[in-house]
Amino acid sequence: MRNEFHADLQTVSQLLVELAQEVRAAMRQATRALLTADRRAAEAVIAGDRDIDHRYRDVEERVCELLARQAPVASDLRAMITALHVAADLERMGDLADHVAKTALRRHPSPAVPAELRPVFTDMAGVADRMAEKIATVLASPDAELAAELDRDDDAMDELHKGLFGVVLGADWPYGVETAIDATLLGRFYERFADHAVNAGEHVVYLITGHPTPS
Amino acid sequence: MRNEFHADLQTVSQLLVELAQEVRAAMRQATRALLTADRRAAEAVIAGDRDIDHRYRDVEERVCELLARQAPVASDLRAMITALHVAADLERMGDLADHVAKTALRRHPSPAVPAELRPVFTDMAGVADRMAEKIATVLASPDAELAAELDRDDDAMDELHKGLFGVVLGADWPYGVETAIDATLLGRFYERFADHAVNAGEHVVYLITGHPTPS
Repeated sequence: MRNEFHADLQTVSQLLVELAQEVRAAMRQATRALLTADRRAAEAVIAGDRDIDHRYRDVEERVCELLARQAPVASDLRAMITALHVAADLERMGDLADHVAKTALRRHPSPAVPAELRPVFTDMAGVADRMAEKIATVLASPDAELAAELDRDDDAMDELHKGLFGVVLGADWPYGVETAIDATLLGRFYERFADHAVNAGEHVVYLITGHPTPS
Repeated sequence: MRNEFHADLQTVSQLLVELAQEVRAAMRQATRALLTADRRAAEAVIAGDRDIDHRYRDVEERVCELLARQAPVASDLRAMITALHVAADLERMGDLADHVAKTALRRHPSPAVPAELRPVFTDMAGVADRMAEKIATVLASPDAELAAELDRDDDAMDELHKGLFGVVLGADWPYGVETAIDATLLGRFYERFADHAVNAGEHVVYLITGHPTPS
């Protein structure tokens, strides 16, 4: 029974790894759509969000099935609940990639991001990508130290986010309010993506160590 | 055993009702802080967010305990998982009230919302309040019809949100970029609050009817 449970748990973990990889790919593609005004990339991300939602529900169904069939207790139960949390964070990260893609599409064929902001969004996307990669890695092979790195990545994201406001609020901002609003929302999408990655990482750390991350 | 389970489930429901009421009160107070530059109200919301987080974890602990002790199946298991989802949505709604309060505090003693935007934020806050009230009501006494009303409320919120951008992007917007950014983020906080209320409502409907809400 216990071996069977662990095989099932392995299946759920594998689904989570694939979900994390899908979400990472979605945000990469959304960033490309954003920075190169690539309409097809934007549309692909938006269409792909349904697959991500589908996979999320798949994880949830399997966890429910496992809970019903195996009635796990203690750390096994904790692992199941953690899987639900991580899946929910990943699903939301997928939504945020979708939001970035939709912003790119709304301004197409104009770029949603003016030249002055390309460096900061390139950097934010780089951090987001690194974080999504780490989540996929720690889900495949739990590593509390690597998961804890997500906090430092998030600090880097927060600094970039502040820098973004510095540019938009600078005296020489030439683009007016509409572009400032786009930049504000886009900045928030990347920053929330990072927050959910941190959350997912904390759940994985909890699972590995049995202790919540001090916050 | 089954009666005992239902008594426990009742306790969890009651905790969710209280959480919903707390979240509703937090958003009311955050709105007051925002619209009247009330520093104390803002600080109270920010301090109170810890209680909301604490209650959220309390729900989760109880659900885990129940799952471990009772090993429910079928609809009882579904009710437990739904409770986790609803608690997560409510916790996030509390965060959004906290974000509104922090925005009010950051601009204090100046008002974060200029006169032109007070009507739209008053209306958005009114819709948010109505939605939080409905969530508390349907959690106390499941009512699929009332829960379904949340979708219409959310449409009203989306209209107000569009109207907000109309004002900020109007040719005669006199406040510059910083106020536009505040308005954009505040608008998003109320809109996301409504989205989470809709999610929570959908979970409750699923619980009552056994069918996901068509989307």
